[in-house]
Amino acid sequence: MRRVYLDHSATTPVRKEVADLVYSYMTTYFGNPSSIHSFGREAKKAMEVAREQVADLIGAKPEEIIFTSGGTEADNLAVIGTAFANQKKGKHVITSAIEHHAVLDSFKYLEKQGFKVTYVPVDKNGLVDPDDVAKAITDETTLISIMHVNNEVGTIQPIKEIAELAKSKNKNIIVHTDGVQSVGKIPVNVDDLQVDLLSASSHKIYGPKGVGCLYVRKGTKIEPTHHGGGQERKRRPGTENLPGIVGFGKAAELAKQELEQEMKRLTELRDMLIDGILERIPDVKLNGDRIKRVPGNVNVSIRYVEGESLLLSLDMKGIAASSGSACTSGSLDPSHVLLAMGIPHEIAHGSLRMTLGRDNTKEDIEYVLDTLPEIVKRLRAMSPLYNNN
Amino acid sequence: MRRVYLDHSATTPVRKEVADLVYSYMTTYFGNPSSIHSFGREAKKAMEVAREQVADLIGAKPEEIIFTSGGTEADNLAVIGTAFANQKKGKHVITSAIEHHAVLDSFKYLEKQGFKVTYVPVDKNGLVDPDDVAKAITDETTLISIMHVNNEVGTIQPIKEIAELAKSKNKNIIVHTDGVQSVGKIPVNVDDLQVDLLSASSHKIYGPKGVGCLYVRKGTKIEPTHHGGGQERKRRPGTENLPGIVGFGKAAELAKQELEQEMKRLTELRDMLIDGILERIPDVKLNGDRIKRVPGNVNVSIRYVEGESLLLSLDMKGIAASSGSACTSGSLDPSHVLLAMGIPHEIAHGSLRMTLGRDNTKEDIEYVLDTLPEIVKRLRAMSPLYNNN
Repeated sequence: MRRVYLDHSATTPVRKEVADLVYSYMTTYFGNPSSIHSFGREAKKAMEVAREQVADLIGAKPEEIIFTSGGTEADNLAVIGTAFANQKKGKHVITSAIEHHAVLDSFKYLEKQGFKVTYVPVDKNGLVDPDDVAKAITDETTLISIMHVNNEVGTIQPIKEIAELAKSKNKNIIVHTDGVQSVGKIPVNVDDLQVDLLSASSHKIYGPKGVGCLYVRKGTKIEPTHHGGGQERKRRPGTENLPGIVGFGKAAELAKQELEQEMKRLTELRDMLIDGILERIPDVKLNGDRIKRVPGNVNVSIRYVEGESLLLSLDMKGIAASSGSACTSGSLDPSHVLLAMGIPHEIAHGSLRMTLGRDNTKEDIEYVLDTLPEIVKRLRAMSPLYNNN
Repeated sequence: MRRVYLDHSATTPVRKEVADLVYSYMTTYFGNPSSIHSFGREAKKAMEVAREQVADLIGAKPEEIIFTSGGTEADNLAVIGTAFANQKKGKHVITSAIEHHAVLDSFKYLEKQGFKVTYVPVDKNGLVDPDDVAKAITDETTLISIMHVNNEVGTIQPIKEIAELAKSKNKNIIVHTDGVQSVGKIPVNVDDLQVDLLSASSHKIYGPKGVGCLYVRKGTKIEPTHHGGGQERKRRPGTENLPGIVGFGKAAELAKQELEQEMKRLTELRDMLIDGILERIPDVKLNGDRIKRVPGNVNVSIRYVEGESLLLSLDMKGIAASSGSACTSGSLDPSHVLLAMGIPHEIAHGSLRMTLGRDNTKEDIEYVLDTLPEIVKRLRAMSPLYNNN
């Protein structure tokens, strides 16, 4: 059976060039970067090359990159690490209603610790209005964290406008963006975006799992969330995941090289898939902004169909998709992102996310467009809700 | 030039069987374990096999294993996660003076958060006296954390006696042991040791870097140190490092199979190296206990010699060793472990740690025993301290 993987926002396969490199750093060049002997020096050198590669992808300086165990750790470090490090300046922080749980739950933790959190809303397309952020700023505000690209509906947020406006009101405000779904997929430049902190993850860009990074602009006050050795300029303790870091670096380098071409290709495939679904299936609504949208993201609500049944039926045809983010797939609650966009519960339950990647072809999309309408038809035929209409 | 790697306590090469498996889980079986489609289910299944393998190595149940990004994260989660989760019962916690910085600095963080910490001393061999721990217990004590094997001097602590005595005084006390340097090297059984929490790391036992685990006995109250998705029974958020976890599992399985035989072999090589050094080099002292010592650890203080010069000279002969732990190698301070054992500053500075592993042979030891005395002689000849004697 044909297997079509359409869940690249959940995770991606490690590309061969990267996996080969990771392998050699597990076996031949296995030293601990903190050791002073030749094995350690080799390791340290490789780590610094990777730091340059990752920095280069986002327009940062290598010394502004802190390697972490992934996007979640980077988000925690960004939100909690700066809120606490700057709490003498104020205990008010701002985020949006549609952040990834790694950000959202870090803010919920801050609330328990006595911080005041403002959650700015989004419009029906999932976009944050920079004016809403600006209006929320008080003298006590120290941190704003708004994601760059939403992981469920692919909306690209106006981060540059938010940062600019915020800093015009209070130049000391720290701006963080969760770039896990943007880095390597659309152009990301920390100076252009005017952010002080940016999280990224390796396994979303064909690098290994278990590694990510936080960009920290020089001069930004931040404290570690874990304690121990002096690694990563005393900001992230623990033996560095060298094979992972080296793989992340290589994946970043390749992503940069192929960015423009891959954006064009994925945008075409995405639009072909969106147009095909809207044409062939009645009572379907595209979630998220049609234009301000990351190239590979398709998210539709299919009325009178239950998300999980849809996924399992697709899976039986070899198509791997998701209903929302993988991180909350165990939960039966409808997506907090779709609800924040004003989509009713019953429609949010029938949402389907398909995220395309470098292994997908036009034939894959054709296969989905041949398969999905039949599945929807069958499921609707069994649905009491649909029959009543 | 011959290269002899004698820094296995810093990190180990990933063995081929493990690296091959990691490779296939980066490329072929790359799914996100939280996804419900076939790629995700394959991933989840592999993760549960690994969980059984790791649990099996330490006599735990699979559901008691939380995978982390490494030993440091596991230690932080153990110390901070339980201290906070149980703070209503009391805010007094106990540890030893010779813990790894991942534990020690977690306790320092707790002190800043208003906890009272007792640091129990060690004797001249680096051993904790269970009576000292028992004497420190108050009605407010909630947590005791004493490492199983010290990373610098290899001393095996009487964890079972400590846990038994502590629980006889207060059965609700939670006992944690940092098992990063014991798991896979000596027999470790959580029931036998009577511990509630135990940290382990993959890259110390020929598994990949970037993964470790915390054993949490069923019923032990603990809260996460990071916030986000619902992975690892809501105790450790973030996409699981599946290739790393699968590799850790395989490394654990192999470690268990070879434990007895490898302990015997490494003990012989270790004793050959210790005896050879003590015979061939004057003014040398073995640090740590001669008997209650992990098989692969040699740690000696060589008087009138500066540690760093010694390491660099050895490195030029292809021998990779260390002066203490890799995590503090950037620091010029003498080891806190040696100082806690009562070793004077000037002698602690000349300490040399050589930690043996599965790739080392009798020929390696002979090469070291031929090389080291000459280096020491040359360095001492240049030392004003030595010439004055």
